[in-house]
Amino acid sequence: MGKVYLIGAGPGDPELITLKGLKILKIADVILYDRLISKDLLKESKAEAEKIYVGKELGEANLQEWINKTLVEKAKGNKIVVRLKGGDPYVFGRGEEECYYVISKGIECEVIPGISSAIAVPAYAGIPVTSRWFSSGFTVITGNRANGNEIDEDYIPKKGTLVILMGLSNVKKLQEVLLKTRSKDTHVAIIQNGTLESQKVYISTLENLSKIVEQNEIRSPAIIVIGEVIKLRDSLWKLS
Amino acid sequence: MGKVYLIGAGPGDPELITLKGLKILKIADVILYDRLISKDLLKESKAEAEKIYVGKELGEANLQEWINKTLVEKAKGNKIVVRLKGGDPYVFGRGEEECYYVISKGIECEVIPGISSAIAVPAYAGIPVTSRWFSSGFTVITGNRANGNEIDEDYIPKKGTLVILMGLSNVKKLQEVLLKTRSKDTHVAIIQNGTLESQKVYISTLENLSKIVEQNEIRSPAIIVIGEVIKLRDSLWKLS
Repeated sequence: MGKVYLIGAGPGDPELITLKGLKILKIADVILYDRLISKDLLKESKAEAEKIYVGKELGEANLQEWINKTLVEKAKGNKIVVRLKGGDPYVFGRGEEECYYVISKGIECEVIPGISSAIAVPAYAGIPVTSRWFSSGFTVITGNRANGNEIDEDYIPKKGTLVILMGLSNVKKLQEVLLKTRSKDTHVAIIQNGTLESQKVYISTLENLSKIVEQNEIRSPAIIVIGEVIKLRDSLWKLS
Repeated sequence: MGKVYLIGAGPGDPELITLKGLKILKIADVILYDRLISKDLLKESKAEAEKIYVGKELGEANLQEWINKTLVEKAKGNKIVVRLKGGDPYVFGRGEEECYYVISKGIECEVIPGISSAIAVPAYAGIPVTSRWFSSGFTVITGNRANGNEIDEDYIPKKGTLVILMGLSNVKKLQEVLLKTRSKDTHVAIIQNGTLESQKVYISTLENLSKIVEQNEIRSPAIIVIGEVIKLRDSLWKLS
Protein backbone atom coordinates (compact mmCIF):
# COMPACT_ATOMS: atom_id res chain seq x y z
CA MET A 1 0.00 0.00 0.00
CA GLY A 2 1.26 3.48 -0.83
CA LYS A 3 1.04 6.59 1.30
CA VAL A 4 -0.22 10.13 0.88
CA TYR A 5 1.83 13.16 1.95
CA LEU A 6 0.25 16.59 2.19
CA ILE A 7 3.15 18.97 1.72
CA GLY A 8 3.11 22.72 2.22
CA ALA A 9 5.16 24.37 -0.51
CA GLY A 10 5.20 27.76 1.20
CA PRO A 11 3.98 31.14 -0.02
CA GLY A 12 5.72 31.51 -3.39
CA ASP A 13 9.52 31.73 -3.11
CA PRO A 14 10.47 28.11 -3.98
CA GLU A 15 13.33 28.15 -1.44
CA LEU A 16 10.79 28.42 1.36
CA ILE A 17 9.89 24.73 1.17
CA THR A 18 11.17 22.65 4.10
CA LEU A 19 13.93 20.06 3.81
CA LYS A 20 11.43 17.40 4.82
CA GLY A 21 8.95 18.46 2.15
CA LEU A 22 11.61 18.51 -0.56
CA LYS A 23 12.93 15.09 0.46
CA ILE A 24 9.53 13.49 -0.07
CA LEU A 25 8.85 15.49 -3.24
CA LYS A 26 12.02 14.02 -4.75
CA ILE A 27 10.87 10.42 -4.26
CA ALA A 28 7.18 10.94 -5.11
CA ASP A 29 5.59 8.78 -7.82
CA VAL A 30 2.52 11.00 -8.22
CA ILE A 31 2.18 14.73 -7.49
CA LEU A 32 -1.12 16.61 -7.40
CA TYR A 33 -0.27 20.31 -7.36
CA ASP A 34 -2.09 23.60 -6.97
CA ARG A 35 -2.22 26.69 -9.16
CA LEU A 36 0.41 28.75 -7.35
CA ILE A 37 3.09 26.07 -7.08
CA SER A 38 6.48 27.16 -8.44
CA LYS A 39 7.75 25.39 -11.57
CA ASP A 40 11.18 25.23 -9.89
CA LEU A 41 9.75 22.95 -7.22
CA LEU A 42 8.14 20.56 -9.68
CA LYS A 43 11.52 20.23 -11.41
CA GLU A 44 12.88 18.69 -8.20
CA SER A 45 10.68 15.62 -8.66
CA LYS A 46 11.63 12.45 -10.53
CA ALA A 47 11.41 12.81 -14.31
CA GLU A 48 9.02 9.87 -14.49
CA ALA A 49 6.75 11.12 -11.68
CA GLU A 50 3.15 11.68 -12.75
CA LYS A 51 2.34 15.36 -12.27
CA ILE A 52 -1.33 16.26 -12.07
CA TYR A 53 -2.46 19.88 -12.10
CA VAL A 54 -5.49 20.45 -9.88
CA GLY A 55 -5.75 24.26 -9.81
CA LYS A 56 -9.12 25.52 -8.74
CA GLU A 57 -9.81 27.37 -11.97
CA LEU A 58 -10.39 23.99 -13.56
CA GLY A 59 -13.79 24.98 -12.30
CA GLU A 60 -15.25 21.56 -11.73
CA ALA A 61 -17.83 21.70 -8.98
CA ASN A 62 -16.69 18.32 -7.78
CA LEU A 63 -12.96 18.96 -8.15
CA GLN A 64 -12.33 18.38 -4.43
CA GLU A 65 -14.07 15.02 -4.58
CA TRP A 66 -12.01 14.11 -7.62
CA ILE A 67 -8.77 15.07 -5.82
CA ASN A 68 -9.72 13.00 -2.77
CA LYS A 69 -10.50 9.95 -4.87
CA THR A 70 -7.36 10.30 -6.98
CA LEU A 71 -5.16 10.48 -3.86
CA VAL A 72 -6.65 7.20 -2.63
CA GLU A 73 -6.66 5.44 -5.98
CA LYS A 74 -2.99 6.25 -6.64
CA ALA A 75 -1.93 5.25 -3.13
CA LYS A 76 -3.78 1.95 -3.51
CA GLY A 77 -1.60 1.38 -6.58
CA ASN A 78 1.33 1.30 -4.17
CA LYS A 79 2.53 4.81 -5.04
CA ILE A 80 4.10 7.57 -2.97
CA VAL A 81 1.52 10.28 -3.55
CA VAL A 82 2.26 13.94 -2.83
CA ARG A 83 -0.43 16.57 -2.55
CA LEU A 84 1.59 19.77 -2.99
CA LYS A 85 -0.22 22.82 -1.69
CA GLY A 86 0.58 26.53 -1.49
CA GLY A 87 1.37 27.82 2.01
CA ASP A 88 0.53 25.34 4.77
CA PRO A 89 -1.89 22.44 4.17
CA TYR A 90 -3.78 23.13 7.41
CA VAL A 91 -4.27 26.89 6.98
CA PHE A 92 -7.35 27.22 4.77
CA GLY A 93 -5.88 24.55 2.52
CA ARG A 94 -8.66 21.96 2.85
CA GLY A 95 -5.82 19.66 3.84
CA GLU A 96 -7.86 18.32 6.73
CA GLU A 97 -10.62 17.24 4.34
CA GLU A 98 -8.17 15.42 2.12
CA CYS A 99 -6.36 13.74 4.99
CA TYR A 100 -9.68 12.80 6.60
CA TYR A 101 -10.86 11.14 3.40
CA VAL A 102 -7.57 9.33 2.76
CA ILE A 103 -7.42 7.94 6.31
CA SER A 104 -11.09 6.92 6.19
CA LYS A 105 -10.14 4.69 3.25
CA GLY A 106 -7.42 2.99 5.30
CA ILE A 107 -4.48 4.79 3.68
CA GLU A 108 -1.72 6.45 5.69
CA CYS A 109 -1.61 10.25 5.44
CA GLU A 110 1.19 12.47 6.73
CA VAL A 111 1.14 16.24 6.81
CA ILE A 112 4.40 18.14 6.28
CA PRO A 113 3.83 21.75 7.30
CA GLY A 114 4.72 24.62 5.01
CA ILE A 115 5.59 28.25 5.59
CA SER A 116 2.23 29.97 5.85
CA SER A 117 1.59 33.01 3.68
CA ALA A 118 -0.22 34.51 6.66
CA ILE A 119 3.08 35.05 8.48
CA ALA A 120 5.76 35.03 5.76
CA VAL A 121 4.14 37.36 3.25
CA PRO A 122 3.92 40.19 5.81
CA ALA A 123 7.53 39.38 6.89
CA TYR A 124 8.81 39.76 3.31
CA ALA A 125 7.07 43.13 3.23
CA GLY A 126 8.81 44.24 6.45
CA ILE A 127 5.80 43.61 8.70
CA PRO A 128 6.07 41.35 11.78
CA VAL A 129 2.69 39.91 12.81
CA THR A 130 3.58 40.31 16.47
CA SER A 131 5.66 42.90 18.27
CA ARG A 132 6.28 43.64 21.92
CA TRP A 133 5.71 47.26 21.05
CA PHE A 134 2.51 46.96 19.05
CA SER A 135 0.73 43.61 19.17
CA SER A 136 0.75 40.59 21.48
CA GLY A 137 -1.28 38.45 19.14
CA PHE A 138 -2.54 37.93 15.62
CA THR A 139 -5.60 36.48 13.98
CA VAL A 140 -5.84 34.87 10.57
CA ILE A 141 -9.19 34.74 8.79
CA THR A 142 -10.37 34.19 5.26
CA GLY A 143 -12.56 36.51 3.21
CA ASN A 144 -14.06 33.48 1.48
CA ARG A 145 -15.96 31.31 3.90
CA ALA A 146 -17.30 27.88 3.10
CA ASN A 147 -20.85 28.92 3.85
CA GLY A 148 -21.22 31.87 1.52
CA ASN A 149 -19.56 35.23 1.66
CA GLU A 150 -20.50 36.43 5.12
CA ILE A 151 -17.69 37.62 7.36
CA ASP A 152 -18.40 36.38 10.89
CA GLU A 153 -17.56 39.22 13.27
CA ASP A 154 -17.13 36.78 16.14
CA TYR A 155 -13.85 35.63 14.61
CA ILE A 156 -12.37 39.13 14.86
CA PRO A 157 -10.91 40.30 18.18
CA LYS A 158 -10.90 43.97 19.16
CA LYS A 159 -7.11 44.13 19.31
CA GLY A 160 -4.10 42.54 17.64
CA THR A 161 -2.86 42.13 14.10
CA LEU A 162 -5.35 40.79 11.56
CA VAL A 163 -4.25 38.86 8.50
CA ILE A 164 -6.90 38.23 5.88
CA LEU A 165 -6.33 35.62 3.20
CA MET A 166 -8.45 35.58 0.05
CA GLY A 167 -10.09 38.83 1.08
CA LEU A 168 -10.10 40.79 -2.19
CA SER A 169 -13.40 39.69 -3.67
CA ASN A 170 -15.15 40.56 -0.44
CA VAL A 171 -13.17 43.65 0.51
CA LYS A 172 -16.09 46.11 0.82
CA LYS A 173 -17.96 43.95 3.27
CA LEU A 174 -14.73 43.25 5.12
CA GLN A 175 -13.99 46.95 5.52
CA GLU A 176 -17.53 47.59 6.78
CA VAL A 177 -17.27 44.84 9.40
CA LEU A 178 -13.81 45.93 10.56
CA LEU A 179 -14.85 49.55 10.96
CA LYS A 180 -17.27 48.46 13.68
CA THR A 181 -14.41 47.65 16.06
CA ARG A 182 -11.32 49.32 14.62
CA SER A 183 -10.73 53.01 13.96
CA LYS A 184 -10.77 54.34 10.40
CA ASP A 185 -7.14 55.43 10.78
CA THR A 186 -5.99 51.85 11.46
CA HIS A 187 -3.01 50.97 9.28
CA VAL A 188 -3.63 48.51 6.47
CA ALA A 189 -1.24 46.84 4.04
CA ILE A 190 -2.20 44.92 0.93
CA ILE A 191 0.54 42.63 -0.35
CA GLN A 192 0.21 41.18 -3.83
CA ASN A 193 2.38 38.28 -5.09
CA GLY A 194 4.05 38.09 -1.69
CA THR A 195 7.62 36.67 -1.46
CA LEU A 196 7.99 36.73 -5.26
CA GLU A 197 10.06 39.12 -7.41
CA SER A 198 6.78 40.67 -8.50
CA GLN A 199 5.71 41.45 -4.91
CA LYS A 200 3.85 44.75 -4.54
CA VAL A 201 2.91 46.42 -1.26
CA TYR A 202 0.19 49.05 -0.80
CA ILE A 203 -0.01 50.93 2.49
CA SER A 204 -3.12 52.84 3.54
CA THR A 205 -5.74 53.14 6.26
CA LEU A 206 -8.83 51.10 6.98
CA GLU A 207 -11.22 53.72 5.66
CA ASN A 208 -9.50 53.54 2.25
CA LEU A 209 -9.00 49.78 2.05
CA SER A 210 -11.54 48.93 -0.63
CA LYS A 211 -10.75 52.10 -2.59
CA ILE A 212 -7.05 51.13 -2.78
CA VAL A 213 -7.93 47.63 -4.01
CA GLU A 214 -10.23 49.08 -6.64
CA GLN A 215 -8.03 51.95 -7.85
CA ASN A 216 -4.97 49.76 -8.20
CA GLU A 217 -6.94 46.86 -9.64
CA ILE A 218 -5.22 44.53 -7.18
CA ARG A 219 -5.72 40.89 -8.09
CA SER A 220 -5.16 37.70 -6.13
CA PRO A 221 -2.98 36.29 -4.72
CA ALA A 222 -3.01 39.09 -2.18
CA ILE A 223 -3.00 39.30 1.58
CA ILE A 224 -4.45 42.07 3.70
CA VAL A 225 -2.77 42.99 6.98
CA ILE A 226 -4.39 45.27 9.53
CA GLY A 227 -2.83 46.78 12.62
CA GLU A 228 -0.21 48.93 14.25
CA VAL A 229 2.66 46.55 13.38
CA ILE A 230 2.60 48.09 9.90
CA LYS A 231 4.22 51.18 11.45
CA LEU A 232 7.41 49.14 11.83
CA ARG A 233 7.71 48.66 8.10
CA ASP A 234 9.81 51.75 7.40
CA SER A 235 12.32 50.66 10.00
CA LEU A 236 12.48 46.98 9.07
CA TRP A 237 12.41 47.12 5.35
CA LYS A 238 14.63 49.99 4.26
CA LEU A 239 17.85 48.02 4.14
CA SER A 240 16.62 44.47 3.68
CA MET B 1 30.22 45.32 5.68
CA GLY B 2 28.61 42.05 6.77
CA LYS B 3 24.95 41.26 6.99
CA VAL B 4 22.58 39.86 9.58
CA TYR B 5 20.09 37.09 8.78
CA LEU B 6 17.27 36.27 11.17
CA ILE B 7 16.46 32.64 10.39
CA GLY B 8 13.50 30.67 11.68
CA ALA B 9 14.62 27.13 12.50
CA GLY B 10 11.08 25.83 12.89
CA PRO B 11 9.41 24.16 15.88
CA GLY B 12 11.83 21.33 16.73
CA ASP B 13 12.10 18.69 14.00
CA PRO B 14 15.37 19.82 12.33
CA GLU B 15 14.04 18.87 8.88
CA LEU B 16 11.47 21.63 9.14
CA ILE B 17 13.99 24.36 8.36
CA THR B 18 13.59 25.92 4.90
CA LEU B 19 16.05 25.43 2.05
CA LYS B 20 16.74 29.15 2.14
CA GLY B 21 17.47 29.12 5.86
CA LEU B 22 19.79 26.13 5.58
CA LYS B 23 21.66 27.66 2.63
CA ILE B 24 22.57 30.74 4.67
CA LEU B 25 23.30 28.72 7.82
CA LYS B 26 25.92 26.77 5.84
CA ILE B 27 27.87 29.90 4.88
CA ALA B 28 27.48 31.77 8.17
CA ASP B 29 30.60 33.02 9.97
CA VAL B 30 28.82 33.67 13.26
CA ILE B 31 25.67 32.01 14.64
CA LEU B 32 23.76 33.22 17.68
CA TYR B 33 21.32 30.46 18.60
CA ASP B 34 18.45 29.93 21.02
CA ARG B 35 17.84 27.28 23.66
CA LEU B 36 15.59 25.00 21.61
CA ILE B 37 17.71 24.84 18.46
CA SER B 38 18.49 21.29 17.33
CA LYS B 39 22.11 20.16 17.51
CA ASP B 40 21.63 18.59 14.05
CA LEU B 41 21.09 22.03 12.59
CA LEU B 42 24.20 23.53 14.14
CA LYS B 43 26.21 20.67 12.61
CA GLU B 44 25.25 21.99 9.18
CA SER B 45 27.32 25.12 9.71
CA LYS B 46 31.00 25.56 8.83
CA ALA B 47 33.37 23.91 11.31
CA GLU B 48 35.11 27.25 11.87
CA ALA B 49 31.89 29.24 12.36
CA GLU B 50 31.64 30.95 15.73
CA LYS B 51 28.61 29.53 17.57
CA ILE B 52 27.23 31.62 20.40
CA TYR B 53 24.55 30.26 22.72
CA VAL B 54 22.09 32.93 23.78
CA GLY B 55 19.34 30.88 25.48
CA LYS B 56 17.16 32.94 27.76
CA GLU B 57 17.99 30.97 30.90
CA LEU B 58 21.33 32.71 30.84
CA GLY B 59 19.19 35.01 32.90
CA GLU B 60 20.92 38.26 32.17
CA ALA B 61 18.47 41.12 32.44
CA ASN B 62 20.18 42.81 29.55
CA LEU B 63 20.64 39.70 27.41
CA GLN B 64 18.54 41.14 24.58
CA GLU B 65 20.67 44.27 24.48
CA TRP B 66 23.79 42.13 24.43
CA ILE B 67 22.40 40.06 21.52
CA ASN B 68 21.54 43.21 19.55
CA LYS B 69 24.99 44.68 20.06
CA THR B 70 26.76 41.43 19.22
CA LEU B 71 24.83 41.10 15.94
CA VAL B 72 25.97 44.57 14.91
CA GLU B 73 29.53 44.23 16.12
CA LYS B 74 30.07 40.94 14.27
CA ALA B 75 28.47 42.26 11.07
CA LYS B 76 30.72 45.33 11.23
CA GLY B 77 33.63 42.88 11.22
CA ASN B 78 32.51 41.91 7.73
CA LYS B 79 30.88 38.66 8.86
CA ILE B 80 27.78 36.79 7.71
CA VAL B 81 25.87 36.72 10.98
CA VAL B 82 22.96 34.35 11.56
CA ARG B 83 20.50 34.77 14.39
CA LEU B 84 18.94 31.30 14.54
CA LYS B 85 15.60 31.28 16.32
CA GLY B 86 13.05 28.62 17.18
CA GLY B 87 9.82 28.77 15.14
CA ASP B 88 9.44 31.96 13.12
CA PRO B 89 11.47 35.10 13.96
CA TYR B 90 8.39 37.34 13.71
CA VAL B 91 6.03 35.27 15.87
CA PHE B 92 6.83 36.27 19.45
CA GLY B 93 10.50 35.91 18.61
CA ARG B 94 11.58 39.51 19.29
CA GLY B 95 12.97 39.32 15.76
CA GLU B 96 11.52 42.73 14.98
CA GLU B 97 13.47 44.28 17.86
CA GLU B 98 16.70 42.74 16.65
CA CYS B 99 16.15 43.68 13.02
CA TYR B 100 15.11 47.19 14.04
CA TYR B 101 18.30 47.66 16.02
CA VAL B 102 20.56 46.20 13.33
CA ILE B 103 19.06 48.38 10.59
CA SER B 104 19.22 51.46 12.81
CA LYS B 105 22.99 50.92 12.92
CA GLY B 106 23.18 50.89 9.13
CA ILE B 107 23.59 47.12 8.74
CA GLU B 108 21.49 45.08 6.33
CA CYS B 109 19.06 42.65 7.97
CA GLU B 110 17.10 39.94 6.18
CA VAL B 111 14.42 37.77 7.73
CA ILE B 112 14.03 34.18 6.54
CA PRO B 113 10.72 32.86 7.84
CA GLY B 114 10.49 29.59 9.74
CA ILE B 115 7.72 27.08 10.29
CA SER B 116 5.78 28.51 13.22
CA SER B 117 5.11 26.23 16.18
CA ALA B 118 1.68 27.84 16.36
CA ILE B 119 0.58 25.99 13.21
CA ALA B 120 2.96 23.02 12.89
CA VAL B 121 2.84 21.72 16.45
CA PRO B 122 -0.96 21.25 16.30
CA ALA B 123 -0.54 19.69 12.81
CA TYR B 124 1.93 17.10 14.12
CA ALA B 125 -0.63 16.27 16.80
CA GLY B 126 -3.37 15.76 14.19
CA ILE B 127 -5.03 19.14 14.73
CA PRO B 128 -5.58 21.56 11.84
CA VAL B 129 -5.88 25.19 13.02
CA THR B 130 -8.59 25.85 10.44
CA SER B 131 -11.30 23.61 9.01
CA ARG B 132 -14.26 24.27 6.77
CA TRP B 133 -16.25 22.16 9.20
CA PHE B 134 -15.19 23.72 12.47
CA SER B 135 -13.26 26.99 12.25
CA SER B 136 -12.80 29.72 9.67
CA GLY B 137 -10.01 31.42 11.54
CA PHE B 138 -7.38 31.14 14.23
CA THR B 139 -5.75 33.43 16.74
CA VAL B 140 -2.28 33.14 18.21
CA ILE B 141 -1.50 34.79 21.54
CA THR B 142 1.16 34.46 24.18
CA GLY B 143 0.63 33.76 27.86
CA ASN B 144 3.69 35.84 28.66
CA ARG B 145 3.15 39.46 27.71
CA ALA B 146 5.84 42.09 27.68
CA ASN B 147 4.01 44.25 30.21
CA GLY B 148 3.59 41.77 33.03
CA ASN B 149 1.42 38.70 33.17
CA GLU B 150 -1.98 40.09 32.29
CA ILE B 151 -3.92 38.36 29.53
CA ASP B 152 -5.64 41.04 27.49
CA GLU B 153 -9.15 39.78 26.69
CA ASP B 154 -9.41 42.10 23.73
CA TYR B 155 -6.98 39.89 21.82
CA ILE B 156 -9.33 36.90 22.10
CA PRO B 157 -12.23 36.59 19.63
CA LYS B 158 -15.46 34.82 20.59
CA LYS B 159 -15.02 32.16 17.91
CA GLY B 160 -12.26 30.32 16.09
CA THR B 161 -9.27 28.24 17.10
CA LEU B 162 -6.97 29.71 19.74
CA VAL B 163 -3.31 28.82 19.94
CA ILE B 164 -1.48 29.94 23.06
CA LEU B 165 2.30 29.97 23.12
CA MET B 166 4.19 30.14 26.40
CA GLY B 167 0.94 29.79 28.31
CA LEU B 168 1.90 27.28 31.02
CA SER B 169 3.14 29.59 33.74
CA ASN B 170 -0.02 31.63 33.47
CA VAL B 171 -2.49 28.83 32.82
CA LYS B 172 -4.90 29.50 35.71
CA LYS B 173 -5.44 33.11 34.72
CA LEU B 174 -5.72 32.05 31.09
CA GLN B 175 -8.44 29.53 31.87
CA GLU B 176 -10.35 32.10 33.90
CA VAL B 177 -10.27 34.64 31.06
CA LEU B 178 -11.24 32.09 28.41
CA LEU B 179 -14.20 30.83 30.42
CA LYS B 180 -15.77 34.29 30.11
CA THR B 181 -16.41 33.77 26.38
CA ARG B 182 -16.02 30.05 25.75
CA SER B 183 -18.01 27.18 27.23
CA LYS B 184 -16.43 24.95 29.87
CA ASP B 185 -16.83 21.96 27.55
CA THR B 186 -14.66 23.55 24.86
CA HIS B 187 -12.02 21.12 23.65
CA VAL B 188 -8.43 21.83 24.69
CA ALA B 189 -5.17 20.16 23.71
CA ILE B 190 -1.81 20.67 25.38
CA ILE B 191 1.13 19.61 23.25
CA GLN B 192 4.51 19.25 24.88
CA ASN B 193 7.77 18.94 22.88
CA GLY B 194 5.79 19.30 19.67
CA THR B 195 7.21 17.78 16.43
CA LEU B 196 9.91 15.92 18.38
CA GLU B 197 10.12 12.17 19.17
CA SER B 198 9.26 13.07 22.75
CA GLN B 199 6.02 14.84 21.76
CA LYS B 200 3.15 14.32 24.22
CA VAL B 201 -0.46 15.33 23.69
CA TYR B 202 -3.04 15.85 26.42
CA ILE B 203 -6.71 16.25 25.44
CA SER B 204 -9.28 17.71 27.82
CA THR B 205 -11.84 20.47 28.21
CA LEU B 206 -11.46 24.12 29.12
CA GLU B 207 -12.75 23.66 32.67
CA ASN B 208 -9.94 21.16 33.34
CA LEU B 209 -7.11 22.96 31.55
CA SER B 210 -5.07 24.11 34.52
CA LYS B 211 -5.74 20.86 36.41
CA ILE B 212 -4.32 18.81 33.53
CA VAL B 213 -1.20 20.97 33.39
CA GLU B 214 -0.72 20.61 37.14
CA GLN B 215 -1.48 16.90 37.47
CA ASN B 216 0.79 15.92 34.62
CA GLU B 217 3.47 18.41 35.61
CA ILE B 218 3.64 19.62 32.03
CA ARG B 219 6.72 21.75 31.40
CA SER B 220 7.64 24.06 28.55
CA PRO B 221 7.99 23.97 25.62
CA ALA B 222 4.26 23.38 25.33
CA ILE B 223 1.47 24.82 23.23
CA ILE B 224 -2.18 25.06 24.18
CA VAL B 225 -4.85 24.72 21.49
CA ILE B 226 -8.48 25.55 22.10
CA GLY B 227 -11.43 24.87 19.85
CA GLU B 228 -13.61 22.45 17.96
CA VAL B 229 -10.89 21.52 15.46
CA ILE B 230 -9.51 19.20 18.15
CA LYS B 231 -12.46 16.89 17.40
CA LEU B 232 -10.79 16.06 14.09
CA ARG B 233 -7.79 14.57 15.83
CA ASP B 234 -9.06 11.00 16.05
CA SER B 235 -9.70 10.99 12.33
CA LEU B 236 -6.50 12.68 11.24
CA TRP B 237 -3.99 11.11 13.51
CA LYS B 238 -4.82 7.42 13.73
CA LEU B 239 -2.81 6.33 10.74
CA SER B 240 -0.26 9.08 10.40
